[in-house]
Amino acid sequence: MGNERVFAGIGGIVFLAVGIGIGVLIGWYSGPDRVNTSMENALSEEESEIQQRLLDLIDNTQIDENLRFLTSEPHVAGRPQQYVLAEWVRDKFTEYGFDSSEIVTYNVLLSYPSEVDGEESVVQHLVYNDTEDGYQVEYESQTSEPPLDETGKDKDVLPPFNAYSANGTVEGELVYANYARVEDFFALEDLGISVQDKIVIARYGKIYRGDKGKFAAQFGAKGLILFSDPADYTVLGEPVYPDGLYLPPTGSQRGSCLDGSGDPLTPGYPAVESAYRYPENGSTYLGLPTIPIHPIPSVNAKYFLSLMEGDEVIEEWRGGIEGLTYKYGPGFAAPSNESLVRMRISTSNQRTDAWNVIGTIRGSVEPDRYVILGNHRDAWAFGAIDPSSGTAAMMEVARAFGVLLKEGWRPRRTVMFGSWGAEEYGLIGSNEWVEEYSKNLDNRAVAYLNIDIAVSGTYTPDFGSTPNLYNTIRAATKLVPDPNPDEFENGAVTTVYDRWSLRDSGEDEPGIHDLGSGSDYAPFLQVVGVSAVDYTFVHDKATIPISPYPMYHSVYETYELVKNFYDPDFYYHQASSRLFAEMLRDLADSKIIPLNCAVYADRIGDFFTALKEGETGQKMVNDGDLSFDFMEDAVENLKVKADAFENYIANTLDKSDILAVREVNDRLMNFERSFIDPLGLPGRPTIRHVVFAPSSRDSYSSDKFAGIIDTMFDIDNNTDPEKWGKVEQQLAAVTYALASAAHSLELDMA
Amino acid sequence: MGNERVFAGIGGIVFLAVGIGIGVLIGWYSGPDRVNTSMENALSEEESEIQQRLLDLIDNTQIDENLRFLTSEPHVAGRPQQYVLAEWVRDKFTEYGFDSSEIVTYNVLLSYPSEVDGEESVVQHLVYNDTEDGYQVEYESQTSEPPLDETGKDKDVLPPFNAYSANGTVEGELVYANYARVEDFFALEDLGISVQDKIVIARYGKIYRGDKGKFAAQFGAKGLILFSDPADYTVLGEPVYPDGLYLPPTGSQRGSCLDGSGDPLTPGYPAVESAYRYPENGSTYLGLPTIPIHPIPSVNAKYFLSLMEGDEVIEEWRGGIEGLTYKYGPGFAAPSNESLVRMRISTSNQRTDAWNVIGTIRGSVEPDRYVILGNHRDAWAFGAIDPSSGTAAMMEVARAFGVLLKEGWRPRRTVMFGSWGAEEYGLIGSNEWVEEYSKNLDNRAVAYLNIDIAVSGTYTPDFGSTPNLYNTIRAATKLVPDPNPDEFENGAVTTVYDRWSLRDSGEDEPGIHDLGSGSDYAPFLQVVGVSAVDYTFVHDKATIPISPYPMYHSVYETYELVKNFYDPDFYYHQASSRLFAEMLRDLADSKIIPLNCAVYADRIGDFFTALKEGETGQKMVNDGDLSFDFMEDAVENLKVKADAFENYIANTLDKSDILAVREVNDRLMNFERSFIDPLGLPGRPTIRHVVFAPSSRDSYSSDKFAGIIDTMFDIDNNTDPEKWGKVEQQLAAVTYALASAAHSLELDMA
Repeated sequence: MGNERVFAGIGGIVFLAVGIGIGVLIGWYSGPDRVNTSMENALSEEESEIQQRLLDLIDNTQIDENLRFLTSEPHVAGRPQQYVLAEWVRDKFTEYGFDSSEIVTYNVLLSYPSEVDGEESVVQHLVYNDTEDGYQVEYESQTSEPPLDETGKDKDVLPPFNAYSANGTVEGELVYANYARVEDFFALEDLGISVQDKIVIARYGKIYRGDKGKFAAQFGAKGLILFSDPADYTVLGEPVYPDGLYLPPTGSQRGSCLDGSGDPLTPGYPAVESAYRYPENGSTYLGLPTIPIHPIPSVNAKYFLSLMEGDEVIEEWRGGIEGLTYKYGPGFAAPSNESLVRMRISTSNQRTDAWNVIGTIRGSVEPDRYVILGNHRDAWAFGAIDPSSGTAAMMEVARAFGVLLKEGWRPRRTVMFGSWGAEEYGLIGSNEWVEEYSKNLDNRAVAYLNIDIAVSGTYTPDFGSTPNLYNTIRAATKLVPDPNPDEFENGAVTTVYDRWSLRDSGEDEPGIHDLGSGSDYAPFLQVVGVSAVDYTFVHDKATIPISPYPMYHSVYETYELVKNFYDPDFYYHQASSRLFAEMLRDLADSKIIPLNCAVYADRIGDFFTALKEGETGQKMVNDGDLSFDFMEDAVENLKVKADAFENYIANTLDKSDILAVREVNDRLMNFERSFIDPLGLPGRPTIRHVVFAPSSRDSYSSDKFAGIIDTMFDIDNNTDPEKWGKVEQQLAAVTYALASAAHSLELDMA
Repeated sequence: MGNERVFAGIGGIVFLAVGIGIGVLIGWYSGPDRVNTSMENALSEEESEIQQRLLDLIDNTQIDENLRFLTSEPHVAGRPQQYVLAEWVRDKFTEYGFDSSEIVTYNVLLSYPSEVDGEESVVQHLVYNDTEDGYQVEYESQTSEPPLDETGKDKDVLPPFNAYSANGTVEGELVYANYARVEDFFALEDLGISVQDKIVIARYGKIYRGDKGKFAAQFGAKGLILFSDPADYTVLGEPVYPDGLYLPPTGSQRGSCLDGSGDPLTPGYPAVESAYRYPENGSTYLGLPTIPIHPIPSVNAKYFLSLMEGDEVIEEWRGGIEGLTYKYGPGFAAPSNESLVRMRISTSNQRTDAWNVIGTIRGSVEPDRYVILGNHRDAWAFGAIDPSSGTAAMMEVARAFGVLLKEGWRPRRTVMFGSWGAEEYGLIGSNEWVEEYSKNLDNRAVAYLNIDIAVSGTYTPDFGSTPNLYNTIRAATKLVPDPNPDEFENGAVTTVYDRWSLRDSGEDEPGIHDLGSGSDYAPFLQVVGVSAVDYTFVHDKATIPISPYPMYHSVYETYELVKNFYDPDFYYHQASSRLFAEMLRDLADSKIIPLNCAVYADRIGDFFTALKEGETGQKMVNDGDLSFDFMEDAVENLKVKADAFENYIANTLDKSDILAVREVNDRLMNFERSFIDPLGLPGRPTIRHVVFAPSSRDSYSSDKFAGIIDTMFDIDNNTDPEKWGKVEQQLAAVTYALASAAHSLELDMA
């Protein structure tokens, strides 16, 4: 999972005003009079038995076994072990009795930490002198993470690198840029500190690292060094790996810096043999970084930062490296003021195969309707959390479905399992598959359930989804036993729902966050408009703000880490599997598809209010002379039409009328498609969902009405004479999509 | 109808080589072993009775009455009489017992021949002298067509004009440019004659007049005068109106010069109240002409052309004005060599309402599947042929369906009738409606049947369609009695099919042309991918190459013209109504939707062969080093999958299995959607069909694989270093769409 979860909307950075109106609080409540489609699907006795049997079949020891096997070797995208695992998944699906199971291959552009002239990528402190070379290397970053236990020894572990980094050598002065967010660069500008032709050093966290690289380049930097600051990956006084679950000073985060998702060479189309491939260095459209970007551990960062010149940074910019005064730069203080930093980066792009595995259980009644569960299989190293905790859990869901199949049961609709390759590089495997089958998915896909990281904490489940799935998610959590009820006062918690409800800061119902990007649900949602769920069992983010978890993308993310510190008995993994098994069953087997459009419409109403009443909306009205009247009408009309439609399902629909049920289900399925604009969002032709989209300032987080947010961004400093027209255009495009959604539900049709 | 029908592909202009390989001959034969879906729908006795009753209900005298009423006043888009007719249509649908009937209004940019300072638009011959004004007007074109019988007298007829012409005054020397096609301008260049800063005078015909205006501007002309040459609108020795059906010398063709279709201010979105509207003079993207364009009759053209300087034109460029030697120019010969031509054009754009009427008959079994019959209602003047012959015929289909409804019958699927406004301006009414309901149409529309001009000749029916409708069309023609079997030797012709078959130059089966643009099927096909039929009963184009018919868009296109010279008893109109009634019934009522994908796949195979083996394909291979291997594989695979699917329907499908039938029908409906690329064709984001598209060199005609054709256009003179990459990209996009189409039919799914 390339995701540092950021909850709904942009955080509270004041000058980033555009996002603020949209940061709707989690904890939304569906309302007491809301029809719950899931509940309308009253189960027959036989169906209830299947439901229970499915939960009972999920075996924690099987998941433990799966994880041990999956993490025995590193399994990076495009590498031999990743193919070994693809074959294993394929063979498992076959063994489970699926109707089909196949490896689907795409040839895509990946990136590896290649050695050039026998030299690995490093960051060096260079002192110029009179030697033959003209300089001497005073200090050099580590080229691999030293093994701290037996796991990592003698294994084919790739050294830390940032995928798609430009390669080559750059030298320059350092500037510290905090998290390298756009607001951090603005703050440096306000301080009169330019990063032009400098090397930026910034800490990991808060936003997608690819956006850090994008901003560094946009602001003129010639290179970007990323480091894992203890403030973001440890808790003071808590033991680090192998004695605990926090990141040791030698730990480093790998990760991609692609701007966008899918194979960079074939945007908009699948990377099949017949595809047209853009020339690799032909176009910025491809989203490949234009500068070297490289990660170092905090132990190395401490060395470089301790040499720095300039004022001490403000409190919010201070990290947690002990004994260090964080300074802005630029450059080093005397006596090192003549010396420079050199990045010598040999990371290089390579055309490589990525392997998905697709396993299919054909539906008994509506084989042409698909419910899809997916997880990526590739990891940066052993990947015991990301993604193998999810793989282990998904494979157990598959096994359980297989048992039921052999017992003679078969879901009403077709169930597909997707094991994606090359997610870490930019959701590539899933994206290419969605592109290849976009028309079939458009016509047939009911929902996509994503399990990337199953367990990265044991505090509470954390769901993201489109709002039509809120009820379905909550219904499932009410059925699944809590993995550790002893943690709570006697009897307070028996189900996952109870725990979630107690631990969520929301109001009546536990909150579900909005979808941005960062895992494989994104192409389903953005390319086709398939309603989606994402999920992880997480630690307490309120008290320990580590995102997503300390050992993320490091070599220390091992089976032993999970077994010793997270989930020794795999009960949390078991609960995760059960949640997905039940959601999959509910979506695939319920006569009325449990996608509630009235909940969706209400949620859009909340987003609208937050936009209109927030700073962005006020600015649109006051400075841009724009009106929300049409959008407001569209929002209200959508609510009315959605309520009427759900009431029709609940009270009027003859559920024995096969074609009437099919018609209702088609509308429920297609509702999400209404939000897809074929013309795409501004400057992002393949990002098409006008309600939910990855933020342009942080791909991981979700912008609501991103077309408006993007055209409003920094509008005070925007010199385009057409700037307000462009905002108005996006406002109209959203209003149009809302009207389309309402039309799709109209009972008298049009 | 804004259409001068051009059959499949680009004509035989040698240096326009790119199109040539695609000009597949008409007369394609579906093959003796082809499954005919229509035939698979064996009718029950009751269904056969309905089929026959529907044909019997179509009454020629009703159509006569309809036409007389519709043509009693001019009914230009946006004008009061057009609203009167909208109300009439709406009330008729209500009277016929339709489930709903409503006027749907869009506020769009239209264009009218406004007077400026009390002066109408004219083309003048200006002689400069010493008078107070400094010049004298030696000659002036007529500002209206003089009435030649009682019909046109005292009516609110708009003078001839070209909609969306730039207004203002330009003066300059004339250059004669034949038909003002791109190849005509190339030919002038080859002769060393520049049109830069000149006024081009060109004859109507061969291509869409808007493309003439586009090319004239692209080649630098400051104005364009269009005239109706007798060679193109009369037959030597035949009487002209009111004594015959040929165009008198005072007749002039009105018509739009919009580049593109739909409301120019809201491309890609419906022109509803909430729409964003581009500033009118902000963007060339809107397709509005940048120069004045104005039509004159041949009597005026003769004056101007007779003064011209320069060499006599080659034979192909010679028109039919008697006593005139056609010369290229530039400018006038002595003694007029100092004088100029002035265009003083007051045509101006106005935001105006356009009114569609939508009448709906709700389907009894699958109300969420739509079969749509449409005709535009607006005319340039009385419009007795274009479009009121079609309106009169469509209303009779509606009446017949209404009678059956009242008798208790109801079609399986929903039937909609669309009466479109502002088609003449650029398919505006239909386009806006398709845009507003694009999601519902995407999910629900089975087919669109277009009847623009019903009868503009009595020789043979002329169909255009997507190939999946070939069988459906032919089946209907075999049921409908010929309107005038006495014209043939005893017993040779009893059905429309017999006539068509005898008179078509094709091989075993009579030919059906491919769809470009020029009438309201285009937005259905290009925006959503709805399979479509277009139709007209025409004169013999082989012996009288007048396109589409002599009186096209003139004031003389009256009820009397139709009644006296075309169809006194309205038997041809009756046959037209019957054809549409039966196709509508077949598509709306057959259990298996009669859309044959195997026929479509075979036809694509023909297009592929023509492309590959033609000049364009040879150039791609030889000069561009491109390969057709992937596309060939995709074509062959599509054929295999389509044949297998049709065989499945014929031999395996359990037709009593309601959901299995629905699944098959969904695939048949969605097959056409596979050819829609959301990213659009190069430079044409809202033209999305990769197999059929309006030619960029003539919107009326159909290019096959237009993305390839457009990127190959004039490639020898193209200096873009990426030019072959762009062709390759389009080749890949088509190959991808063909693969998507094949996936959509795969029986084991994916």
